[in-house]
Amino acid sequence: MYIRKQFRRERLRIPMDKVVLKLALHRKSIRRYKSDKIDLSKILYAIKTALQAPSGANQQPWRFIIVEDPEVKAEIRKICEDLEKKFYSRVKKELKEWLLSRGFTWKKPFLTEAPYLIAVFAELGKPYAVQSTWLAIGYLLLALEEAGLASLTYTPPSSPELLEILRVPEGFQLQTIIPVGIAGEDKRKEPRKKLHEVTFYNRWGTTLMQD
Amino acid sequence: MYIRKQFRRERLRIPMDKVVLKLALHRKSIRRYKSDKIDLSKILYAIKTALQAPSGANQQPWRFIIVEDPEVKAEIRKICEDLEKKFYSRVKKELKEWLLSRGFTWKKPFLTEAPYLIAVFAELGKPYAVQSTWLAIGYLLLALEEAGLASLTYTPPSSPELLEILRVPEGFQLQTIIPVGIAGEDKRKEPRKKLHEVTFYNRWGTTLMQD
Repeated sequence: MYIRKQFRRERLRIPMDKVVLKLALHRKSIRRYKSDKIDLSKILYAIKTALQAPSGANQQPWRFIIVEDPEVKAEIRKICEDLEKKFYSRVKKELKEWLLSRGFTWKKPFLTEAPYLIAVFAELGKPYAVQSTWLAIGYLLLALEEAGLASLTYTPPSSPELLEILRVPEGFQLQTIIPVGIAGEDKRKEPRKKLHEVTFYNRWGTTLMQD
Repeated sequence: MYIRKQFRRERLRIPMDKVVLKLALHRKSIRRYKSDKIDLSKILYAIKTALQAPSGANQQPWRFIIVEDPEVKAEIRKICEDLEKKFYSRVKKELKEWLLSRGFTWKKPFLTEAPYLIAVFAELGKPYAVQSTWLAIGYLLLALEEAGLASLTYTPPSSPELLEILRVPEGFQLQTIIPVGIAGEDKRKEPRKKLHEVTFYNRWGTTLMQD
């Protein structure tokens, strides 16, 4: 009970401008894109931001390929859709129903519709390479949102063919392909769990007040 | 050559207020903390921001424990330092030299000095649980920075004892323990690679202009 009161009091003090929260609240995953051109400078801005993320032993294990060439995008889409067809044919029933209920299929039109794709790789030999790279992707998404750009973290099934097309050397693993552009669909953000549902105090099981 | 010119031109158009880049540039990993109290509301603000991150099939696999209790912090520190002593006794020479050159030892004073620790967990059965959780940690760090708080992503060696102390149920894996508070050391941010060193255009190997 003491904890509950304390949390209620603390919640009244709101920090600063809350820009980061506003960006995080506003950002949603977008699967359809308009063909509108966007400034490459905005993509570079977001990657510059991502480069400032911390990483295991500061090894900065991330690499980025900005894909603008329509032919390369078409090749990527072809490979991914072929893989997705196979994936959808063997996915577990529960997940499949969830996916279908949200209109997900093997089709990945955003891979050619979006003016840019950002393919993100992790150098697997580095400490916490995958973790560090995804932390940097968090930075990247917020910077893209700030630049007014829609995005999606799409991770295709593992594919040596895709790495070959992009000429990726050994030791680097594709983490995600992020289409970036102007949203071509109007959708609601998927609902999130409440703070008290996922946050404990001092030990697991001691919950915060309802928020 | 065409690419180089294009990039030079694009770079002149700078997007918006660049708040996210400023936060990312300003944030650095801090290993010593003042004992100053901080508002719990700021911790909650940062976690609220993290909850808005995207995740595999929107499963939101993350959980957070905010540790304020000095006894729990002391237990965590004891376990971690015992594990670190073992780790340092067998770490590879190259990494060890790098660590020592930056003053890293098995000692983790921040685990008791910082007024708060945020332990972050991933629910391993969920799709892309680790990746999604670290993406959310990226959001978390930027929100902490915005709130004027220093932080560090410290990942101890794997430890069943630590999970027991924190009463973590099966299926959840500790990702990191983030001390949060007021910086008690004045240090420079570790240098980052340049944009053109880690970013390619259309295919791996085609580099951007020098930045």
